Amino acid sequence: MAELSISRRTRRTPFTDRVIAAGVKGWTVYNHMLLPTHFGDVAAECRHLKTAVQVWDVACERQVEVRGPDAARLVQMLTPRDLRGVHPGRCLYTPMVDETGGMLNDPVTLKLAEDRWWISIADSDLLLWVKGLAYGFRLEVDVTEPDVSPLAVQGPLAETLMARVFGERVRDIRFFRFDLFDFRGRELVIARSGYSKQGGFEIYVDGADIGPALWDALFAAGADLDVRAGCPNLIERIESGLLSYGNDMTRENTPHECGLGRFCDTATAIGCVGRDALLRVASEGPVRQIRSLAISGPPLAPCADVWPVHAGGRAVGRVTSCAWSPDFETNVAIGMIRMTHWDDGTEVTVETPEGARRATVRERPFN
Amino acid sequence: MAELSISRRTRRTPFTDRVIAAGVKGWTVYNHMLLPTHFGDVAAECRHLKTAVQVWDVACERQVEVRGPDAARLVQMLTPRDLRGVHPGRCLYTPMVDETGGMLNDPVTLKLAEDRWWISIADSDLLLWVKGLAYGFRLEVDVTEPDVSPLAVQGPLAETLMARVFGERVRDIRFFRFDLFDFRGRELVIARSGYSKQGGFEIYVDGADIGPALWDALFAAGADLDVRAGCPNLIERIESGLLSYGNDMTRENTPHECGLGRFCDTATAIGCVGRDALLRVASEGPVRQIRSLAISGPPLAPCADVWPVHAGGRAVGRVTSCAWSPDFETNVAIGMIRMTHWDDGTEVTVETPEGARRATVRERPFN
Repeated sequence: MAELSISRRTRRTPFTDRVIAAGVKGWTVYNHMLLPTHFGDVAAECRHLKTAVQVWDVACERQVEVRGPDAARLVQMLTPRDLRGVHPGRCLYTPMVDETGGMLNDPVTLKLAEDRWWISIADSDLLLWVKGLAYGFRLEVDVTEPDVSPLAVQGPLAETLMARVFGERVRDIRFFRFDLFDFRGRELVIARSGYSKQGGFEIYVDGADIGPALWDALFAAGADLDVRAGCPNLIERIESGLLSYGNDMTRENTPHECGLGRFCDTATAIGCVGRDALLRVASEGPVRQIRSLAISGPPLAPCADVWPVHAGGRAVGRVTSCAWSPDFETNVAIGMIRMTHWDDGTEVTVETPEGARRATVRERPFN
Repeated sequence: MAELSISRRTRRTPFTDRVIAAGVKGWTVYNHMLLPTHFGDVAAECRHLKTAVQVWDVACERQVEVRGPDAARLVQMLTPRDLRGVHPGRCLYTPMVDETGGMLNDPVTLKLAEDRWWISIADSDLLLWVKGLAYGFRLEVDVTEPDVSPLAVQGPLAETLMARVFGERVRDIRFFRFDLFDFRGRELVIARSGYSKQGGFEIYVDGADIGPALWDALFAAGADLDVRAGCPNLIERIESGLLSYGNDMTRENTPHECGLGRFCDTATAIGCVGRDALLRVASEGPVRQIRSLAISGPPLAPCADVWPVHAGGRAVGRVTSCAWSPDFETNVAIGMIRMTHWDDGTEVTVETPEGARRATVRERPFN
């Protein structure tokens, strides 16, 4: 492995100094911004995430803010999920597709008000697509990237820690809802959400200036909870079947292939740019779909490229994420598998860089 | 410095295996793809680039292909550079702007035919902006990212090496022109261009499958020329005043601020989305502009963030790229400087992480 060369283009976050001080050992670049990947021991960090509480610098989940009289219309153009009747205060996982039904991003969309939305994006410059549509359709909206940097607090002790810093009212936030909380005179959106299945919150830090103070406040309040700096954990997210845009799906895939059909209301999401293209796949179903897999044999190095999947001499899919799970004592993986082999328990062969390995397809994630 | 964690999302190129075999020591991520940054000694690599020939994996310069009856109209919508009368076979450096005149990218655009263009992009998903406009304006075009991976051959011996592999006819390619050349039955676009001022070519490798064979052919033909694996060299590109999108300019900047006014024909580039917004700055000029700077004192570590520039107690700009130049025996830098202090020879102070340093503003690059 070689080092990441950091420049202004690989943007620092309000928390980068703290992450470095905490001993970060691996980075990736996500939305042109630094995202820590580990602090030296992914397996130990996974165990800690499942038992305590971690603070994650996920500022790279940039917001595309859409505001103005046509905001709701524009956001509906982006996604096949029906947004009518959604109340402010909700977070919605929203596949976003182009005119062919291909996935452009899989953000969480926050409805702040009828005329103000935040789209909390995965790794693609969705801003440019939204701006292009807004301009092309002459919509009355302003589309910007505000100075908002999410900080995640994840793990079973997250609620305890958050209540100490923001008050008992944080306990009332339901899953995928958000409310407003004060931090040193600044009103912050806090949602019960995050890129793990261990429970927790995402704080939308509005203004880089208060980032370090908030980080420090969480660590000061959580010393006895063994709070640690963390980051999206490769093992836990694969065990949990959490998809990664750019890894497990790209523009080539429909939401239905990604197992996101339940977030697509193609019958009613009138105005969605990709709706027509998705109608057929919505009614007939896809011919390949995301699955979890257990890959046999000793621990494999993480997937740095696509690994072909075979069965009976035929290509039946590919694996795109993989990690060794100490808890499940197998290599856990995510891949796209053809219909002929996607049933639970189907045996396939994965061509890994360390040779062919037997694997079992699973209809459900491990966690 | 921590390692870069490589995943499918940080895409490998057709040449990545060769780059690793050549001993790459630093990476960055550019257009969601691996870009080598150094092989262990940036200064030695700079010297070699200026005296011999290097092969660079710049596959991350992805192509946005625009084809169809409305292709020329759409490409003109993207840039304030007047594209009328441009003949196929030309490369054009084209600032691309949004409706506010803010820079979205600074690609080289290749006109393959009236109805087929390649936009060889810097680090932003320009594809999404182009697709958004195409859809919004209902243009008859197809906008795609083809399987084309540029490989640069740079340095004073580049022409000699290229002639050995592609024949004497490569010598006839004029600066920022391209022609078609055969490699193992595949017709490849080869342009006289590249991200250095040492001369050379960019080969648009059409099809990842032939990438390794082409790399090997160049090294086999160039052994006596001391051909080496290289990459865009931080020192040389700053000495040469070559801008880096995301580092030296962002969406906040107009082309005129970036010193790219000579590529803007705001009077005649009818149809450009950002034209109206640029008319005033085009006639009155910007109030800040890109400059080279010489920063005094011992070698500084490269710029990982914005460094403020002061003079007489006032903020007058910022530095965004910096490297120690052995040839010029100073820290060479690029920054955005206000009109009051942008004249050649103006003395300013740069706040570097290693303390305040005196610096001299230059109207021209070093190379």
